[in-house]
Amino acid sequence: MDFNFTTLGTASALPTKGRYPSAHVLNIRGRLFLIDCGEGTQMLLFKYGFSILKIDNIFLSHLHGDHCFGIFGLLSSMGMKGRTSKLTIHAPAAFKGILDMFLHHFEGDAIKYEIVHNVLEGSVRGELNKIFESRNIEGYSFPLNHRVPTYGFLFREKIPPLNVVKSKIEEYHLTLKEIALLKSGQDVDRGDEGMLRAEEFTYKPFKPRSFAYCSDTAPFKELVNVVAGVDLLYHEATFANDLEATAKTTFHSTATDAALLAKDAGVKGLVIGHYSSRYSSVDHLKEEAQAIFENVYLASKGEKFEVPLERLSK
Amino acid sequence: MDFNFTTLGTASALPTKGRYPSAHVLNIRGRLFLIDCGEGTQMLLFKYGFSILKIDNIFLSHLHGDHCFGIFGLLSSMGMKGRTSKLTIHAPAAFKGILDMFLHHFEGDAIKYEIVHNVLEGSVRGELNKIFESRNIEGYSFPLNHRVPTYGFLFREKIPPLNVVKSKIEEYHLTLKEIALLKSGQDVDRGDEGMLRAEEFTYKPFKPRSFAYCSDTAPFKELVNVVAGVDLLYHEATFANDLEATAKTTFHSTATDAALLAKDAGVKGLVIGHYSSRYSSVDHLKEEAQAIFENVYLASKGEKFEVPLERLSK
Repeated sequence: MDFNFTTLGTASALPTKGRYPSAHVLNIRGRLFLIDCGEGTQMLLFKYGFSILKIDNIFLSHLHGDHCFGIFGLLSSMGMKGRTSKLTIHAPAAFKGILDMFLHHFEGDAIKYEIVHNVLEGSVRGELNKIFESRNIEGYSFPLNHRVPTYGFLFREKIPPLNVVKSKIEEYHLTLKEIALLKSGQDVDRGDEGMLRAEEFTYKPFKPRSFAYCSDTAPFKELVNVVAGVDLLYHEATFANDLEATAKTTFHSTATDAALLAKDAGVKGLVIGHYSSRYSSVDHLKEEAQAIFENVYLASKGEKFEVPLERLSK
Repeated sequence: MDFNFTTLGTASALPTKGRYPSAHVLNIRGRLFLIDCGEGTQMLLFKYGFSILKIDNIFLSHLHGDHCFGIFGLLSSMGMKGRTSKLTIHAPAAFKGILDMFLHHFEGDAIKYEIVHNVLEGSVRGELNKIFESRNIEGYSFPLNHRVPTYGFLFREKIPPLNVVKSKIEEYHLTLKEIALLKSGQDVDRGDEGMLRAEEFTYKPFKPRSFAYCSDTAPFKELVNVVAGVDLLYHEATFANDLEATAKTTFHSTATDAALLAKDAGVKGLVIGHYSSRYSSVDHLKEEAQAIFENVYLASKGEKFEVPLERLSK
């Protein structure tokens, strides 16, 4: 049961020799979510072995080029590779004009699949909007604080159905009907034999995992509630703290900002990325963040961050 | 006096792990011409040490995504790097809508330089249209035969001014006026001393060099005159000859087509590229072409092909 986050593009606005613009893949149980799609994303997906046909949902945080210029090539290649299944692109409203241009000029015969633009909405800070749901996963967007409408994303596994303790099934010779009742959280009345308490007979098989993505944004206080307690937080850290003033005027964050949020929100791990092109090495950003919050990891091309499954038993 | 052609993106429509979509740099005497601009072009320019601010002219052969999806990121990055000088993009008429979309959605504060769209025109096969001229260089477009309006490009050094033979200057004590007359090709009448013949007193200091670019296109007979005798010809070779039928229906060329043109046109060297994603190795394309025309070179990422200056003396 995979739950991992791969950083592909780690540059901010201006790519460098080694760093491509924003692109990330979140893999939850084999389902691939592409988060941001800067120029070169499809080549990075090929390079690191991701099948572009397995991506059914793309999340564009905002419409600055370094977060979306790879969408045209990716959509074309999906078509050329024979895609027929629907693709949903979660993106701010203005994406309509961009998609229309693409379909008008470049659709050709290649796009034989449906592209749905799910408009990201909501401007109340700290509020979550559900934008994705499957049997096991929920996805939400939430507003960030950047120069254009920008959204963060929260993904979490749903609370798993209860399991019945195996030894109790044998000990009490539980019937299928009794098991079903207990699993749904109801107690079972066995008359003279007494009550079988769901609480004693069942357990949650694992702890649901969660991931939040915040890029690009200036820090703001309501963000802490949105990402509170996630297992893994990706947060931009475009600048080191000595450029706090630049971060403010460009509505970006420093490594310190990212670490303070991680600490205040009690997250388990923090990945920082979206590095300014002025930094050839980014070790100092990690050091700066680690002075505040211990579990800091640097995004780098092709690096995968795992959130292990914590199995629970009784 | 550089004259070289660097292949950056060598893929056809679908990029692969190692091959990026079409992008090439022609360097004539330090002046950089970007020919086609597929996704990832700016990253390849950074990687191979080309300054994007030194590019003043971009030539888009046609508006299939694999030849132009890198333009958005490149224009943005030029802006972020502080470009103020005019940029001319030579591209088919429909580029207007694409550029308008870009400027509407992504101009922001970044584009502080003038972008001129020079519309590629002309549909008469075999006819050259002058689209660029500097003191030493001429550039032409010519129609190709693809599924959408597509243009090839021809660049050549102008015929250099005549030099006066150094030893004759001393021997005949030529005056500045006489030198100027001879350089302009006129004979000098010295009365009793007789005529000084320009033909004997002058020589061309070097042989002007030339380069032609043909991608994407199905073969057609008028092309031979357009590229006749060039020093270096780049020609697409999307397929091997066993896929001639596929090449025909998609309006592409085989390695055989490219080699036949090179041979018939009497060019000096042929670079093939724009390889189908089905080929992981392209050695067989070179072998196929070399059976017809000897001087065949394979385009590969970052490979530079030099056209040496042939100095002439007398």
